[in-house]
Parts: sequence; C-alpha cells; structure tokens
Amino acid sequence: MVAYNEMTKEELESEKERLIIEYKRYQDMNLTLNMARGKPSMEQLDLSMGMLDPITHDEVVDADSGMDVRNYGVLEGLKGAKELLASMVSCDPDSVIVCGNSSLNVMYDQIARGFSFGYLGEKPWAKLDKVKWLCPVPGYDRHFSITEHFGFEMITIPMKEDGPDMDMVEEYVKDPAVKGIWCVPKYSNPEGIVYSEEVVRRFAALKPAAPDFRIFWDNAYAVHYLYDEPDRQDEIPDILEECNKAGNPNLVFEFMSTSKISFSGSGISGVASSPQNKEDIISSMTVQTIGYDKVNQLRHIKFFKDADGIREHMRKHAKILRPKFECVVNTLERELGDLNIGTWVKPNGGYFVTFRTIPNAASRVISLCFGAGVTLTSAGAPFPYHKDPEDSVIRIAPSYPTLPELEKAMEIFTLCVRLASVEILLKK
Amino acid sequence: MVAYNEMTKEELESEKERLIIEYKRYQDMNLTLNMARGKPSMEQLDLSMGMLDPITHDEVVDADSGMDVRNYGVLEGLKGAKELLASMVSCDPDSVIVCGNSSLNVMYDQIARGFSFGYLGEKPWAKLDKVKWLCPVPGYDRHFSITEHFGFEMITIPMKEDGPDMDMVEEYVKDPAVKGIWCVPKYSNPEGIVYSEEVVRRFAALKPAAPDFRIFWDNAYAVHYLYDEPDRQDEIPDILEECNKAGNPNLVFEFMSTSKISFSGSGISGVASSPQNKEDIISSMTVQTIGYDKVNQLRHIKFFKDADGIREHMRKHAKILRPKFECVVNTLERELGDLNIGTWVKPNGGYFVTFRTIPNAASRVISLCFGAGVTLTSAGAPFPYHKDPEDSVIRIAPSYPTLPELEKAMEIFTLCVRLASVEILLKK
Repeated sequence: MVAYNEMTKEELESEKERLIIEYKRYQDMNLTLNMARGKPSMEQLDLSMGMLDPITHDEVVDADSGMDVRNYGVLEGLKGAKELLASMVSCDPDSVIVCGNSSLNVMYDQIARGFSFGYLGEKPWAKLDKVKWLCPVPGYDRHFSITEHFGFEMITIPMKEDGPDMDMVEEYVKDPAVKGIWCVPKYSNPEGIVYSEEVVRRFAALKPAAPDFRIFWDNAYAVHYLYDEPDRQDEIPDILEECNKAGNPNLVFEFMSTSKISFSGSGISGVASSPQNKEDIISSMTVQTIGYDKVNQLRHIKFFKDADGIREHMRKHAKILRPKFECVVNTLERELGDLNIGTWVKPNGGYFVTFRTIPNAASRVISLCFGAGVTLTSAGAPFPYHKDPEDSVIRIAPSYPTLPELEKAMEIFTLCVRLASVEILLKK
Repeated sequence: MVAYNEMTKEELESEKERLIIEYKRYQDMNLTLNMARGKPSMEQLDLSMGMLDPITHDEVVDADSGMDVRNYGVLEGLKGAKELLASMVSCDPDSVIVCGNSSLNVMYDQIARGFSFGYLGEKPWAKLDKVKWLCPVPGYDRHFSITEHFGFEMITIPMKEDGPDMDMVEEYVKDPAVKGIWCVPKYSNPEGIVYSEEVVRRFAALKPAAPDFRIFWDNAYAVHYLYDEPDRQDEIPDILEECNKAGNPNLVFEFMSTSKISFSGSGISGVASSPQNKEDIISSMTVQTIGYDKVNQLRHIKFFKDADGIREHMRKHAKILRPKFECVVNTLERELGDLNIGTWVKPNGGYFVTFRTIPNAASRVISLCFGAGVTLTSAGAPFPYHKDPEDSVIRIAPSYPTLPELEKAMEIFTLCVRLASVEILLKK
C-alpha cells in the first residue's frame, strides 16, 4: 500500500470515505474493550491461586525471627520476604524493608518524608519555595501524579533507546532545587526500554547539587520477561551496589513489588537503600505504622520459596502475555507497516507497548477508539500534567483483554490511527 | 495492714528491709515477664485461625461490585467490609473507606494530608508557623508520637471519669492554631474510660475557631467488652450522626480496626467521615495508593459475616481476657488495698489497666520491675513528650502473658510499688 504521506489529496479523501464506512461497522457492534490499564487478566491471576491455600498452625511462627506472624512486630519485614524481594532485583536482602500491597504507596510515603521531615537532617521540602523533579517521558502517569500532588515543578527528560537522556540529567542536577527523578529502569512504563549499563553507571555517578537529591528507582518489571531466555542485555546492574562503588551510597531508593507476580491487589512491596537511608526511613516508619501484613509476607515466602520459584512463575505469566504482545505488534505491522503514520518498538518484557502517531493525532485516535468501544489510557497520561507536547504518544496495555478481544481492539485501534492520520493530512 | 502514710519512720524502715529481701528473692528467679504492650496472646490469635482457611475460585469475585478481589480496583473497599467496620461503631457504611492492616497508619496519613495539602481547601499546616494539638492524658503513646513527629505543640487535657475535661477543650478550640484532638472514646487507652453521652454531644457541638480543626476519634475498642452483657452505659452515640445533628458534619474523622479482633498484624482498618471529607480523602488517596488489600477484606467478610459474628467472636476474646484483668485488679486489691499508695479503676473493656502511684514513684516502680524481670511500658509513655508531670501513671497491659505469668508479674509489680513508695515516704 502507498504510504499516507505520499498520497494525493484525492487518494486521501477516498481512503477517508472507505475508513469511515469501516469505522461505522465497528460502532454498530457495540463493543466494550479495554486496553487502558496494566491489569493482569483472570487467567494470570489464576496462576497464583496457591496464594489462597490455607496456612496451618505449624506455619505461623517465622523460623528466622521466632515471631508469630499473626501478631504485631518485625517492622522491617520477615527475612524470607526480604530475600524474595532482593532476589528479584539482585540486591542485598539486608538493604530491604518489606512493606504493604502497594509499591506506589511506598514511593508516595518516601516522597512525603522528604516533604514533611527532610532526608538525613536536610530541610523538609515543605519549607522550600520551589522543588523540582525530573520526569523521563513518556513515563508512568501515577509517578507524575504524586509529584504533581506535592506541588513540585516537573521537568521532562526525553527517553532515548537506552534510558533517559543522561546529558540532560547531569545538567539539571546542578540545580539545588532539583530533588529527585523517577526511573523505571527495566521494561520501562510505557516503552519497555531497558536502561543500558552505561546509563545505570552514569546515574550512580551523579553529583547533584542538592544533598537530598534521590533517584526513585522503581524496578517494577525486574522479572517480567516475555521470553523464556532473556537476552543478556536485559540484565541491568544492581543500582545500590553501583551507587556504593561510585561513593554515592545514599543516592537511590529502589522499589520492588509482587503486584504483577502474585495478585495485583494483594502483593507485597519493598524499598531498598543504604544503611543510613534505611535507618532514616525506619525512624519515621516506626511512627507511621504498627507494621505491615506479615501473614501476607508468609504467603509469598511459602508460595514462591525463592528466586527460582519466581522465575518459574514468571514463565507462566509470559506464556499468557507473549501472544498478546505479539498480537499487538503483529497487527501494527500488518495494518500500518508501510503507511508512515506511526512508530512502535516491540518490547522484551513489561506490560506495555508504546505507539507514536504523527504529530497531533494521539488524542484524536483515542477519542475515535472510545467512540467504537475501545478504551485506551487517556491522551497525555504518560506526561507530567497530562500534556504530551506532540500529542503523539499512546500507551497500549494488552494484558487484561482476552486474545480474541485484543485482536478486535487492535483492528479498531489501527483503523482509528489510519482515520485520524488521514484527517490530519487532509488539513495540511 | 497499716497504711504506709500512717507508718512511723521506724515502721517504714523495717518494712523496707522486709521488702528488699522479698525483691531479691524474685531477682534470683531470673524471670522474663512482659506487661508492656497491648498485644493479644497466642490463645487469642488462635481464635481467628479460620482467617487462614483457603479461599476458593468461586469466592474471588465480590458479589456486590462484580470485581475480582485479586485484581486492582475498588479504592474505597468492598461493600461487605464497609458494613462490617460500620457495624462495630454503629455508623453509616457509606461513610467508611476501608484501608490496610494498620489504623495507626490511617490516622498518620490523615494528619499528613492536613499537613501537606490542607483539608477542604484550607492552608496546609506545613505553611503555618505553629500547629497545636489537644492530647487528653493519660493517652495512647503512638498517637502522641505522630503529632510530635509533625512538630505540633501538644497541649494536655486531663481525663475525667467520663472523658476529657470538656470545659478546657471548649476553651482551647477558640485558638485558631489548635487543629485537632486525639480521642479514644470507648475503653480509652490506657484508663478504660467510656465517654459519657454528654461528652460526646459536647464534642459534636464544638465551635472551633479553625475551620480545619478535626476530632480524631479512634474507636479502637468499640466492641472490646470484657463482660458478656455490656452495661447500657458503655454504649456511646454515633459521633458522625451527632456532628451532623449539631451542624458540624465535617468535624470528625472516625477510625476503626480489626487488629485486636482478627490478627493484630493482619487486620483491616477504616476511616469514616462526612461525604465532603470522604471526597477530600479519596482525592488524595487515589494518588497515594493503587488500593488496599481486598483479598484480606474478603477474608474478614467470610470469617465474621456480620455484627453478630463479631459479637460472638469478641465473647471468646473476653473469656480469655477477663481472668487476666481480674487477676490484675484482684492482686492490686489484695496487695495494696489498704496501703494508700496507689489508685486504679477496674475497666469493663479495652486492653489496659492504669495504676497511679503516689507522686514521683512511677519511674522508680518501672525500673524496680525491670530489675526483677518484669517489663512495663516506659514511664511517661502515656503523656506527650513522654513527660508525666506527676510521675505517677503506669499502664498495665495484661493480654499477652499467660495467666500464671501474669500472676507472678503482678506479685512483683505490687511489691515494687510498695518498695518504691516506702523509699519515697522515707525521704520526706
């Protein structure tokens, strides 16, 4: 087929007519399809039904601490749970604090501590006139919502194919008002990018002007491979160790979660950092909470046992997710491959595929999809303040629908991309 | 026996000698006994082993919302869980947001919201020069730790036998810097006091100068009766309804928890408030967390079913706790009844007995106890900044030790009260 940008006005008009007829056909089907959120499917949740097995009376006393997991105590979490979370990101289990079911909440709390109390004796950010935060884009909407909620000025950093633009990051951290950066280092949300070793090392070697600048390293997809044998290049260095080696031990908070491993609503999460940061966190956490749910920690230890258990479990997730990701990418290739109206990258892991339209088309695509029964993440969501300057990024989340639903949704999606592109090209 | 204050110096000297010999006898036993924290005993935790029963695949879809409890979603909590928590405090289930395993964390979060963002459009407290907080004393140490952590100036309000001194509360709230008050309205920590209807109504009718003044109504022991048929006088009015009637719908946040009903480390908690406050909380909560653990909410719904299920379960707790409370009170009566060296009140519910020594004796009693192997909550703990101006209040937590351990611990406790009192009287 001829690329759209090479079509004459007449050809575009006739293509548009054809597309509108097709679009109306889909509208008449009254479909309800959803590719909006990175929610695991029922089939994936069923993989973890063993999490709901009974716990016997013999099991309620934790072997390591001698503590009854049903009672109060053990603020930092069970040793077995620390080991499990640490194994996912290859860090030292002693650096981990095990928290509740939402790693987002752990990140929020950690920002709230900087805001209300300050890190390691530094001035609380609430007392400053301005706090700035670096936001690699496109990124995770819920990260940006947190920094927006606290009133920080968010500065966008473009993502390159091996991570955030580090030249820009190194430049911006010279400003003492810049207090942090959001990172999803492996299979980033939404592009599925894996940070290169060089990017990781440049992060660890940062020399920020602010002593309370922190990297928020949300390693949410550390073990979320789509293919059985991950490429060697998908392994990233342990950021905590790298920071240590670079003489910046307190530079990073690393976050982990089992939300997309066990049950998304009932997983366990954690934060890992240097001994000094950990002590600082615990001194505040001990005021904040009576402790996190240790029975749920026990369930995770019992069900997964160790890193091998997690690896094996993730292979089962991959078996369900892989055909869905391939459906997305193959449909894009088949329907849009030679039309010059969009780009995408096939990720090796994570939860999303990012599609880039021609400029100013994304919100129109999303609204056309909605009109035909397909819900997508709202336009601009992967950007601070929901503003995509190019209006071109669309996050596709293939996990939740069934494969037949997804096939249908992707047909509609590609149709809407074509229709929106034709409309825009005709206006030129 | 002769009251200590009526003894001559010689009699006191000889009593002291006798007590020291007895004390050394206990020291030689190398005991390790703990009456420090309100922790349920193993026997109590065993009452809830049904919480660890399996959940079947048929049960994972919530009948009310149609949502899969294993997945993301339902930020406010399952309807059944709202109903369960509401039934405990007799409030409207629609006013409840169900949260995680620590109600302390919910209170902390609610104060943090006032601090960082402000309630209903009011100025965030972080931007004010001074925030003051009313603290009925003796009270719960962990409440005071939160308001201390945020740097608020804590003002003590004496407890009377039917609740805080309301004349003082009404006076203090005329100061716009006063932003809140801690309350445990039923079987208060640590005295076991039940607020009278009049006190509850005076709270609801408060006219604080600060529009963002809030009552933090920690109804932690709402169903924690020690006797099967609670006296009618132990029922307190629904504070939310009272505030509504008084034209102050937004005045109160009520907190509830199953920590001392199911498992102390793995319960569910909640906050209830007016529609406007609830909306304000949700607007922040939706940024803070992906949602709370709904599988655990389901476990609670399944295990307790309804208010009757909770009532029946609490009777089983009472059966275990009652002899322990009676051991404490009877030992105090038997060993100290006519010595004029302390006072106490027998509570009808809750988790603690408060003992008041003669002035300046409490910390000495606690340190003597520690020397004989009995750990008590540290002196001053039930007061802001850990400062008991009279050094006379000791919180006794009888739940965790076994009955024989408790008997021994109370023998030692009363001995230490006698010894410390003699020492002090001899110095006069």
